[in-house]
Amino acid sequence: MLLSNENHTKLQTNYLFAQVASKVKAFKEANPNKNVISLGIGDVTQPLAPSCIEAMQKAVTDMSKAETFKGYPEYEGYDFLLEKIAKYDYQDRGVNIDTKEIFVSDGAKSDTANIQELFSNDAKVAVLDPVYPVYVDSNVMAGRAGEFKNGRWSNIVYLECKEENGFIPALPNEKVDIIYLCYPNNPTGTVLTKDELQKFVDYALKNESLILFDAAYEAFIREDNIPHSIYEIKDADKVAIEFKSFSKTAGFTGVRCAYTVIPNELAIFDKTTNNLVNLNRLWYRRQATKFNGVSYITQRGAEAIYSENGRKEINNTINYYLENAKILKNTLEDSGLTVYGGVNSPYLWVKTIDNMTSWEFFDYLLNNFYIVGTPGSGFGKAGEGFFRFTSFASREKTIEASNRLKLLKK
Amino acid sequence: MLLSNENHTKLQTNYLFAQVASKVKAFKEANPNKNVISLGIGDVTQPLAPSCIEAMQKAVTDMSKAETFKGYPEYEGYDFLLEKIAKYDYQDRGVNIDTKEIFVSDGAKSDTANIQELFSNDAKVAVLDPVYPVYVDSNVMAGRAGEFKNGRWSNIVYLECKEENGFIPALPNEKVDIIYLCYPNNPTGTVLTKDELQKFVDYALKNESLILFDAAYEAFIREDNIPHSIYEIKDADKVAIEFKSFSKTAGFTGVRCAYTVIPNELAIFDKTTNNLVNLNRLWYRRQATKFNGVSYITQRGAEAIYSENGRKEINNTINYYLENAKILKNTLEDSGLTVYGGVNSPYLWVKTIDNMTSWEFFDYLLNNFYIVGTPGSGFGKAGEGFFRFTSFASREKTIEASNRLKLLKK
Repeated sequence: MLLSNENHTKLQTNYLFAQVASKVKAFKEANPNKNVISLGIGDVTQPLAPSCIEAMQKAVTDMSKAETFKGYPEYEGYDFLLEKIAKYDYQDRGVNIDTKEIFVSDGAKSDTANIQELFSNDAKVAVLDPVYPVYVDSNVMAGRAGEFKNGRWSNIVYLECKEENGFIPALPNEKVDIIYLCYPNNPTGTVLTKDELQKFVDYALKNESLILFDAAYEAFIREDNIPHSIYEIKDADKVAIEFKSFSKTAGFTGVRCAYTVIPNELAIFDKTTNNLVNLNRLWYRRQATKFNGVSYITQRGAEAIYSENGRKEINNTINYYLENAKILKNTLEDSGLTVYGGVNSPYLWVKTIDNMTSWEFFDYLLNNFYIVGTPGSGFGKAGEGFFRFTSFASREKTIEASNRLKLLKK
Repeated sequence: MLLSNENHTKLQTNYLFAQVASKVKAFKEANPNKNVISLGIGDVTQPLAPSCIEAMQKAVTDMSKAETFKGYPEYEGYDFLLEKIAKYDYQDRGVNIDTKEIFVSDGAKSDTANIQELFSNDAKVAVLDPVYPVYVDSNVMAGRAGEFKNGRWSNIVYLECKEENGFIPALPNEKVDIIYLCYPNNPTGTVLTKDELQKFVDYALKNESLILFDAAYEAFIREDNIPHSIYEIKDADKVAIEFKSFSKTAGFTGVRCAYTVIPNELAIFDKTTNNLVNLNRLWYRRQATKFNGVSYITQRGAEAIYSENGRKEINNTINYYLENAKILKNTLEDSGLTVYGGVNSPYLWVKTIDNMTSWEFFDYLLNNFYIVGTPGSGFGKAGEGFFRFTSFASREKTIEASNRLKLLKK
């Protein structure tokens, strides 16, 4: 008799967004004439850059003629895209990453979820709290998380990011094998300086651990001394894999393209061969077996992001979202609220008022201001008492939401 | 210290296509003026259908305007595509599959590789021999395959498809939990009748096993009484998951779109909950955690396959490839060779001459006729003495290859 994977059914159903949707639905049904504005979901709203549109139109036309038709893509991506990534995202910033260290994929979610397949099942994992749930859930499904007790997994190490520590996680107290970091952070919108990130790299070097660095929001960084890539940190290429995405950089949430960097130097010990195994080659083999590359049309669209016009266009859109963040942040701060993030990130991490829990604040905002956000406690225990706003709505809706929130007083 | 997944490094490097490529390269360097024709790789060469091109151009334009822009797709696919699949591929053929049972993905390779994650690690797996390597390799990587000895994995059950049994695999002698079937078959190009497939369904019902049915080449079926879907077989919705792909159906190898059908009825026992678990919901959860859906542009292209013009256009292209197969098959048979497949499939499975091994025949064809195919032994032990030709080259190259092969005499 076929049995299920017992780890899959251990997975806790995350009711966060379902519960948000259900509360919003009930409110709208009871209040059909109220104009509800959502600042909850981390999805973009602005159209693709004209350069990407033009490149994809041309790529579609390429597929219409035998002479320019493209069949199976390379598992790791087309050279035309890999070369642009290597040059503009790394080499031009003084970071020595070459095309052989880059793997194009259909999304950073897929890659951050799948990467754990390369590691032994008893690897000890650390995550930030609050945290993007995919890092935890993919390890639960692999059987690495232990048991779920009081809202946490027994074998996962949680590094808390709270107001008390300025949202700068302490290094693990115990030896861990894998550390997931996400900077600029989802959900808190905070960043680490180069010095702070160096401490994690030094920890990993000392403890022979691996950092899985999710830099999906890198394009939103505006301040100096904030690393755009973990490879700006000394010796990080010996201890870190980096994930990047075009979803927020260029509005590709509906196009699906991202990439993962695995430096040639990275190797871990393998008991089968009793030798070191190269992680770049191990991931190539994984992708070659379980993945078949990214659409030619999509890759041509991603390439266009790096053209002179493309870079200007996507930067304008990111500035548009950052201006939204500023509008919201100013309003909330004028009302006396405490707001983190929103400077190098599309996310605002807002402290609730009157000691409300995250969910109480959710209900309060929905019922009084018809505004939807995401309760911080949904991202982890350490998110309790906080609330996430996104800046991805249109300017009009952001201003309207901001006008309503001016009536919110601490 | 972080250790690697020991199962990943157990994986045998499959040198098949690499070895083919290396031999071809050496030949071309030694014989620069010979025009080598490849009938080896299973990739398409003809352009996309005009209906798909038009739909994708429109979809790209949709992404250029805020009013029609699309962000994150649904994990399981857009309704506009799911509805077409349900109607044209199932309901119009009298098969009762609805949209909630269909999951759109970026490729049947991803899905056939990932599906095993849902099952317990000690599930007993059976595959055909010769076999598409992904079914085996994904189970090796999960630790289900045992040890590799004499060209086979100790815990995998191999169901041989040989000339002696008319390429109709016998039912497993022992109880197995999972059976991978691929029909029309890659690499042999052979098919099962409804009666033959019914025997597998009956076996699965009796033994509480699950059939993973890969129907990627379904669109090539031209003869009666050959099932286009396993759900044409009585009670198959209680025991089978079906995988389909637009790669060969509509030349989407470079566009990346496929789908998987998991009937609502399918459930297996789960030890964590001590209850049955619904496989459709389990897969949804897997996809929601580790995947983020398929490009809007791609899904609009796939939808267009089902328009009146689209269906005609893709059928014309499939007829083009089948005509190629016929040209090659006639030539080889006229030369006295034994040829299987090529009638309901783009693949010809050709018996070597003079008792050559598959690789000896490869060298013979390359050195004497400048033609490249794939040695059957590369797909499994039972493929020894056979050779795979594909019909995916252009008509001109197929005719040129055929003219050369007229000089081949058994």
